[in-house]
Amino acid sequence: MKEINKVVLAYSGGLDTSVIAKWLEDTYLCEVVTFTADLGQGEEVEPARAKAEALGIKEIYIEDLREEFVRDFVFPMFRANTIYEGEYLLGTSIARPLIAKRLVEIASETGADAISHGATGKGNDQVRFELGAYALKPGIQVIAPWREWDLNSRAKLLAYCDRHGIEIQKKKGKSPYSMDANLLHISYEGDLLEDPWNEPEEDMWLWSVSPENAPDEPTYIELTYKSGDIVAIDGVEMSPATVLAHLNKVGGANGIGRVDIVENRYVGMKARGCYETPGGTIMLKAHRAIESITLDREAAHLKDELMPRYAKLIYNGYWWSPEREMLQAMIDTSQTYVSGCVRLKLYKGNVTVVGRESDLTLFDESVATFEDDAGAYDQKDAAGFIKLNALRMRIAAQKGRKLL
Amino acid sequence: MKEINKVVLAYSGGLDTSVIAKWLEDTYLCEVVTFTADLGQGEEVEPARAKAEALGIKEIYIEDLREEFVRDFVFPMFRANTIYEGEYLLGTSIARPLIAKRLVEIASETGADAISHGATGKGNDQVRFELGAYALKPGIQVIAPWREWDLNSRAKLLAYCDRHGIEIQKKKGKSPYSMDANLLHISYEGDLLEDPWNEPEEDMWLWSVSPENAPDEPTYIELTYKSGDIVAIDGVEMSPATVLAHLNKVGGANGIGRVDIVENRYVGMKARGCYETPGGTIMLKAHRAIESITLDREAAHLKDELMPRYAKLIYNGYWWSPEREMLQAMIDTSQTYVSGCVRLKLYKGNVTVVGRESDLTLFDESVATFEDDAGAYDQKDAAGFIKLNALRMRIAAQKGRKLL
Amino acid sequence: MKEINKVVLAYSGGLDTSVIAKWLEDTYLCEVVTFTADLGQGEEVEPARAKAEALGIKEIYIEDLREEFVRDFVFPMFRANTIYEGEYLLGTSIARPLIAKRLVEIASETGADAISHGATGKGNDQVRFELGAYALKPGIQVIAPWREWDLNSRAKLLAYCDRHGIEIQKKKGKSPYSMDANLLHISYEGDLLEDPWNEPEEDMWLWSVSPENAPDEPTYIELTYKSGDIVAIDGVEMSPATVLAHLNKVGGANGIGRVDIVENRYVGMKARGCYETPGGTIMLKAHRAIESITLDREAAHLKDELMPRYAKLIYNGYWWSPEREMLQAMIDTSQTYVSGCVRLKLYKGNVTVVGRESDLTLFDESVATFEDDAGAYDQKDAAGFIKLNALRMRIAAQKGRKLL
Amino acid sequence: MKEINKVVLAYSGGLDTSVIAKWLEDTYLCEVVTFTADLGQGEEVEPARAKAEALGIKEIYIEDLREEFVRDFVFPMFRANTIYEGEYLLGTSIARPLIAKRLVEIASETGADAISHGATGKGNDQVRFELGAYALKPGIQVIAPWREWDLNSRAKLLAYCDRHGIEIQKKKGKSPYSMDANLLHISYEGDLLEDPWNEPEEDMWLWSVSPENAPDEPTYIELTYKSGDIVAIDGVEMSPATVLAHLNKVGGANGIGRVDIVENRYVGMKARGCYETPGGTIMLKAHRAIESITLDREAAHLKDELMPRYAKLIYNGYWWSPEREMLQAMIDTSQTYVSGCVRLKLYKGNVTVVGRESDLTLFDESVATFEDDAGAYDQKDAAGFIKLNALRMRIAAQKGRKLL
Repeated sequence: MKEINKVVLAYSGGLDTSVIAKWLEDTYLCEVVTFTADLGQGEEVEPARAKAEALGIKEIYIEDLREEFVRDFVFPMFRANTIYEGEYLLGTSIARPLIAKRLVEIASETGADAISHGATGKGNDQVRFELGAYALKPGIQVIAPWREWDLNSRAKLLAYCDRHGIEIQKKKGKSPYSMDANLLHISYEGDLLEDPWNEPEEDMWLWSVSPENAPDEPTYIELTYKSGDIVAIDGVEMSPATVLAHLNKVGGANGIGRVDIVENRYVGMKARGCYETPGGTIMLKAHRAIESITLDREAAHLKDELMPRYAKLIYNGYWWSPEREMLQAMIDTSQTYVSGCVRLKLYKGNVTVVGRESDLTLFDESVATFEDDAGAYDQKDAAGFIKLNALRMRIAAQKGRKLL
Repeated sequence: MKEINKVVLAYSGGLDTSVIAKWLEDTYLCEVVTFTADLGQGEEVEPARAKAEALGIKEIYIEDLREEFVRDFVFPMFRANTIYEGEYLLGTSIARPLIAKRLVEIASETGADAISHGATGKGNDQVRFELGAYALKPGIQVIAPWREWDLNSRAKLLAYCDRHGIEIQKKKGKSPYSMDANLLHISYEGDLLEDPWNEPEEDMWLWSVSPENAPDEPTYIELTYKSGDIVAIDGVEMSPATVLAHLNKVGGANGIGRVDIVENRYVGMKARGCYETPGGTIMLKAHRAIESITLDREAAHLKDELMPRYAKLIYNGYWWSPEREMLQAMIDTSQTYVSGCVRLKLYKGNVTVVGRESDLTLFDESVATFEDDAGAYDQKDAAGFIKLNALRMRIAAQKGRKLL
Repeated sequence: MKEINKVVLAYSGGLDTSVIAKWLEDTYLCEVVTFTADLGQGEEVEPARAKAEALGIKEIYIEDLREEFVRDFVFPMFRANTIYEGEYLLGTSIARPLIAKRLVEIASETGADAISHGATGKGNDQVRFELGAYALKPGIQVIAPWREWDLNSRAKLLAYCDRHGIEIQKKKGKSPYSMDANLLHISYEGDLLEDPWNEPEEDMWLWSVSPENAPDEPTYIELTYKSGDIVAIDGVEMSPATVLAHLNKVGGANGIGRVDIVENRYVGMKARGCYETPGGTIMLKAHRAIESITLDREAAHLKDELMPRYAKLIYNGYWWSPEREMLQAMIDTSQTYVSGCVRLKLYKGNVTVVGRESDLTLFDESVATFEDDAGAYDQKDAAGFIKLNALRMRIAAQKGRKLL
Repeated sequence: MKEINKVVLAYSGGLDTSVIAKWLEDTYLCEVVTFTADLGQGEEVEPARAKAEALGIKEIYIEDLREEFVRDFVFPMFRANTIYEGEYLLGTSIARPLIAKRLVEIASETGADAISHGATGKGNDQVRFELGAYALKPGIQVIAPWREWDLNSRAKLLAYCDRHGIEIQKKKGKSPYSMDANLLHISYEGDLLEDPWNEPEEDMWLWSVSPENAPDEPTYIELTYKSGDIVAIDGVEMSPATVLAHLNKVGGANGIGRVDIVENRYVGMKARGCYETPGGTIMLKAHRAIESITLDREAAHLKDELMPRYAKLIYNGYWWSPEREMLQAMIDTSQTYVSGCVRLKLYKGNVTVVGRESDLTLFDESVATFEDDAGAYDQKDAAGFIKLNALRMRIAAQKGRKLL
């Protein structure tokens, strides 16, 4: 067994990570530092302090990372119109690199030689935490209790609490789902969802009303973009986290952003997940709309062709990697002129773009018009354009080649 | 000027192509063969016969191509989850290669040395028709009147009709938009849409009700897939064209499939387009869902990475090209096991997957479960997996490299 | 420890795998089946029989797989002009899937529940063997002694032999390098090569003379291709393995095919390797040459863009995967017309193409000529071609955009 | 005909562009400004001044652009290991954007409303000149005489000279090939080369000796890289143009850099070209070698996968485009740590890497060694790594899927 003196634990204040704190002390005879971050999960983080103190923790870090999270992680990712496997907006994936970064930074600050987390050995999160930690602090030790211990059922966990005097708050009506939340989304896994034929029950969803229960009147909003990022809503300037919180609220109220998929995990299995991403769903649609009038065609296509790869990097946990940085440099270079305004209609689950405008627009009515264009475009040019684009295929056909 | 003896014209029976028929005879002193295809545009094609006869046409081709269109063009394209620039389902693009193919086949049958069409010199359709024609019959001549004549306004066209005795049926309340329709979609361009800030008027849309006007009760349907294609709806086997017609009906009734975008044309300009694709919107969602449980992860990711390129080929008019055939071979190879059933909920513009199942599923509950998996997956394997995936980044960090 | 009854061992007859055979019996108390393949490594395989018998092995498989190796693995790979990291022709990588396939087939034939190999835990070969085995026979057990035992030095191995009565043939002047050979190449690693600044010593190379020692007169050869594969040399039809053996001979005699690189292993480290691939080096050059006149431009470019990915799949051990099969389908589709003849000059390390011809050529002198082309190509078409290709950039510049 | 007042002509001083100067004046009744650049083509540019003056030109630009050419165009391109269709180092392609830029800058300086060049309507150079010009100065007019006039044979050109008093210097033994040269390469097209079966005659090649005629003793050189670019040769710091000139000299003397290919032009035809690129051939090999020890694996693979696309952009004339700038940003981001030294052996056409070293190396002998690594790498990690990478394929096989 590894020799560990001090370990920084990603601590939520919940049952699992409370047990882990105790188990780390008992198993490794080491000091535990707890780190609890407010990423906009919607629960108070301060109560984690009292819980940590009750566990005898001396070094307790509690931090509000919401602005850094949205500004440095969520917004850069949305510049790429990122979506994993055509459906998933990477709400959990994008939060992990920031937590990994803070874990190893706190390890450096406190002289800890290890970090620990509560992610299981079957999921993606362990990979994301650990790849980030190793990339940023290569000598760090990682303790992943779920891969090491034998407390592999709820009964065993409760018995452990009992044995070690860990107090458990019984919540009434606790959700049977495994959940994760931050400003970008809330996720649900497990229980009934383990059968992909089952439709989720309506009361599972916590952040949005159903389209059925959404208002009968649409909501219109205007998003102002500057170089690829939203800087104002309905003309009011807002910080990144405020933008996302606002969009979550208005999106959730209109039944927007529910996703129910089977996805492919990096560790090799298929898994069912349900997600609510109200603000992100709006942002994806709006960002494509502002790009549609301000981004060059080939720049847009290059981004589209590399997006799945960029999404996969983030999903798999490679935010902190040279290849992600290379792609980010490429993406960010494209966003210089992606500025302007998008008008959206939100209605019972639908996000509809109903207007886009920009001082930097590349949409040229004088060229595009069906009416007389006063010579802006010479239709005769098209003949030569087509002739030369067809040349290679014409030669092939002349020489007797058949298309299948 | 080219010497032309006989030309096959893609003839709709409308004003523009009637004028073209006359203009071709007058300008090239040649015979005109008309070709009118039923691709599911929702208008009778037989009336085109009388109109062609009234113009003095002797060789008149009128064909029902709906099954061929869906089976050999639409379905293969949907196997790739194809979508252009994140939004457009390629409803117009995918119909052009079939028309091009029939035009040159009819040219061969009738001994014609040229083909002609009514597409303008600013759009994509001229490219799609002509690339297809040159690829399939390299010696063919192409006459694109809109690039040649000076009848570049409605007034001039009407004057031409008047001069040449072409009868015009005045439709009341004729749409001011430039439209194109087939079984996959109907499109709208021009007029008010030329300003991307304008929201389309509700009465522009012809194929779908608005989400607001859709029923208050959801509709559930089940689609059965076999090797990537839909073969039955709600347990009833149907031909390809019947499948798509059925989905258009049920989708349109539930406010599904409206898209409003600014897109990048191959000829170099940005253009506004609105589309209704009810059935296609359902098919895209459902196909991803059946793939989510039956397609290998890396096969799915390879498809996703190449999809934008495949979509661009079709959009730009390269259906009849060796590179499209290469990509099709790759895509089709992936679909062998994409069989099973998807259950969908349609409600006021929303298509929601609520179940998927397959005898060929790769979803393995025994591995994926949060509960005890009886050894199906050894969580300890994840430690080595992460360690080796991190190795290159750990070495870099140990040697002092900083991530930006 | 796993319960093993019988294990199929990839057995070379050398010291390492002889020790492994003994160690497997002692450690797992199981029966050992040996499998020795002739892949063209240049050593007799029959002597392995006597050695296996001396170890008490009862089921001994010795097989000549040279034709299958070249026909079903090497040739398909060369259709893609495959090269890893710009330099490496994948000589070792491409042999592993065939060995993996035979190992699990023999396991099925003999009722064995495990396979074993002599690859170390630091290299790529363990991955290639095991991914192949798991993909083809998912329930198979794999024993990789180098990852399990403590015989991690030559001295310990020799002591083990001494203890267990394994006879060792002392070779004079044994190479200090770790080597692997088959019909495609021979590789060298370790010893002096572990410092990337060291130039290999001349006597390390076994298959080729140095350019300095190659003949002063060039050798000319003509290769005949049919659908992407070589079917004849200098007009003489040959089987795939005969083709490769012949090219190795003539290439090696002319100092062709030495490569000295630092490559990136799948397990995360950089490693130095030297390779001799005389025939493969000639084939890569010649295949590109025959494609240059018979393959469509966009087909060629699509292949070029996907080649690095295909090479990586093979290098990493994913020959037996759905994504490799998808890419193969795409590649093979492109090769239908890749037939004709390439003339090459071999001289002191240089492979120079000095002629290519094909009945299926797409090279059209009448179009390409600098002389009068009699109207085959209308130079005026180029103006429109350029104008429309420039349009998007002209609009951007007109609207004040600056390129950086 | 366009109204032109003043035109800037890319002027070599040779026959063709002298005729063009005269023809432009006569045809457009406009003033002509000549622009002659020294890009290292190996001919004096000053004589062009007297020739221009003899033609009555008043505004004459003669510029030495060699450093800018190599620093801002050649070196950035080599950071990507750029090669078109596996063979061509883009020597002509990469010079065109700089000429296009200077042409439009001079047009702005002199108040000219047009530019002109001597490229034919069948080649790539017209596209490269004109795309660049349109992208940088969208209102510019372009006159391409070869697409407009009827002087389409040498006889007609000479008659025109005679008629207009243009003096022609008869060169003895003038090459029958169409050639282009700059510091990166010299190219040959036309004449005997129009048959791809013909081997070029030895006296065609001007910059290199044949391998046969190269020295019998090898030459060793050491190249020092800093962030992807060569900054010193054999320890002597040099400017970019000096580096390339030096490598051309030593490369050419050792028979290095001849290429003979059939390539695919952007305008749709296949064309035969022969190239001498001595310095570039050395740089490609050396840059890959320095990257092999300093560049992260995934960064290298990402570059390799995008290189063909980047090469195609440059070949097709899109240097001045947003997508090229995006890719350049990605490539340049990867080069931060690509510093160190490469030792090369040059011998009769062969460039062999015989050593590489760097303070920033990622090659870690302690991990890579075949000897005892003192725990730097735990071989047991490989088992988990393989198991999870195989999981998806094992599940598929367990469920009965067959690989083809």
